[in-house]
Amino acid sequence: MPVYPEFILRNKYLESEGDDFLYHFGFGIKTMDIPKIFGDTKFVCTGGSPTRLGLYAKWFAAACNIECSENLSKSDRFVMYKTGSVVWINHGMGTPSLSIMLIETLKLMHHAKAKDVKFIRLGTSGGVGVEPGTVVITTNAMNAELGDKYIQWIAGERIERETHLDEELRNDLIDVAKEKNIPVQTGLTLCCDDFYEGQMRLDGFFCDYKSEMKFDFLKKIYEKGVRNIEMESTCFASMTYRAGVKAAIVCVTLLNRMKGDQVQIPHDQYVEFEERPFRLVTALIRKQLGL
Amino acid sequence: MPVYPEFILRNKYLESEGDDFLYHFGFGIKTMDIPKIFGDTKFVCTGGSPTRLGLYAKWFAAACNIECSENLSKSDRFVMYKTGSVVWINHGMGTPSLSIMLIETLKLMHHAKAKDVKFIRLGTSGGVGVEPGTVVITTNAMNAELGDKYIQWIAGERIERETHLDEELRNDLIDVAKEKNIPVQTGLTLCCDDFYEGQMRLDGFFCDYKSEMKFDFLKKIYEKGVRNIEMESTCFASMTYRAGVKAAIVCVTLLNRMKGDQVQIPHDQYVEFEERPFRLVTALIRKQLGL
Repeated sequence: MPVYPEFILRNKYLESEGDDFLYHFGFGIKTMDIPKIFGDTKFVCTGGSPTRLGLYAKWFAAACNIECSENLSKSDRFVMYKTGSVVWINHGMGTPSLSIMLIETLKLMHHAKAKDVKFIRLGTSGGVGVEPGTVVITTNAMNAELGDKYIQWIAGERIERETHLDEELRNDLIDVAKEKNIPVQTGLTLCCDDFYEGQMRLDGFFCDYKSEMKFDFLKKIYEKGVRNIEMESTCFASMTYRAGVKAAIVCVTLLNRMKGDQVQIPHDQYVEFEERPFRLVTALIRKQLGL
Repeated sequence: MPVYPEFILRNKYLESEGDDFLYHFGFGIKTMDIPKIFGDTKFVCTGGSPTRLGLYAKWFAAACNIECSENLSKSDRFVMYKTGSVVWINHGMGTPSLSIMLIETLKLMHHAKAKDVKFIRLGTSGGVGVEPGTVVITTNAMNAELGDKYIQWIAGERIERETHLDEELRNDLIDVAKEKNIPVQTGLTLCCDDFYEGQMRLDGFFCDYKSEMKFDFLKKIYEKGVRNIEMESTCFASMTYRAGVKAAIVCVTLLNRMKGDQVQIPHDQYVEFEERPFRLVTALIRKQLGL
């Protein structure tokens, strides 16, 4: 699929509609001047937690000495901030929540007539055979069936969508990580649909498998090239690719799943780890935007 | 599967652990006196939106003239309030987010040694052939493959879990609805993994299907007994059943999908519709708890 500079709507029904309300952002083309506010967007940064995304936006604005908008979302489903040409939106947990945010953001960028926008997910994840604090830059997503497709069910039919992340953007991120001395690795990212059994944790309410099966599974996916596990990568890598948008996934690992299941790092270190994807991604953004 | 009065942990690994930190609630057995605070719980009420669940808790406390706790969650992933023996927790959007909240709530109730707790999901949904404002009390969940299982992927293997909701609790809710003059219907609830294509909306960024296919699909699921569509019911009906907990799903419909895709009701009516599951469920709770 090609990369498109513009957000070309792939829906003839919406093209002919006179209105569009972005339900989970709480505004629409009739209630906000979308081209004026979002027309200059060059980066959409996203991640799960609303608080973290709000902090990232404020830190970025302070570092660049530019203004941070108020929360532009009029719904409590997501938060949205804008700092110059960078938009910050959280996506909640899991592909269903992310898919809603992505579809409405793609529509938002289309309505805004924004051009050459890159999408970056900044997340936290469980590491597979890597040290806690490592930032994994995803080469591609793996689904829970251990294939490389994002699977949708439409009208009762299984539809498989390609996943793909931009190589140039990934290499630019790797270069910046070296400059900034941030520990990075590249690898596949396993996308699961739950945090406990789907990731074979031993600390859920249910656990039908044995400890050995967990370690066999982690070893198996490590050998396939997986370096971290989260819950959004297939949808992110697929929807952005299908829309023709350059995208990257940058997740810090909070633990090495081969050594345990609970996050057990001191609070100060946790905070510093959580800042690493931000430091890396914003260094890239400032370089590319000349800020 | 039987109904258990207690929350019996199905995980021998966690049994032998000396600690358990509920990561997405931000507290654990060593940082909070869980039996003291949660031991008397009789109802866990949940729904997607954090603001709505917070409002529900405050309204319930005011109506019963009891105290509403502060937000007990120390993480921004979910909110959690307690009003007497009723706990209110939001679950975000989609089964992955819900599954995290449910597993940690089941562990919370286990650690609290709570007994005879009922779980009720109060949600919003798209109606299928029912008038907007109708409250659908779910008989059972249907997955996006149009089967009745909750599907998990564990170690790359597909696992199908039974879904089941409590008939007695459902009938009690129907009786209360009649007393309170709240329009209800019972029926199957289709659980989708996305809001746009998975539900065959015509107002997404992508739309590869034709309008006729959408209406054929809605007609097909209506004939199978589906009366509303949301994004959590399979996981909710399965995890509660597997844990031996009595559960119900009570969702108001905000639109009739057979007539459109966007929610187009006046704000006042929207607010009144959103209150209907609350009015119904809290009338039942007050009756059962003698409040």
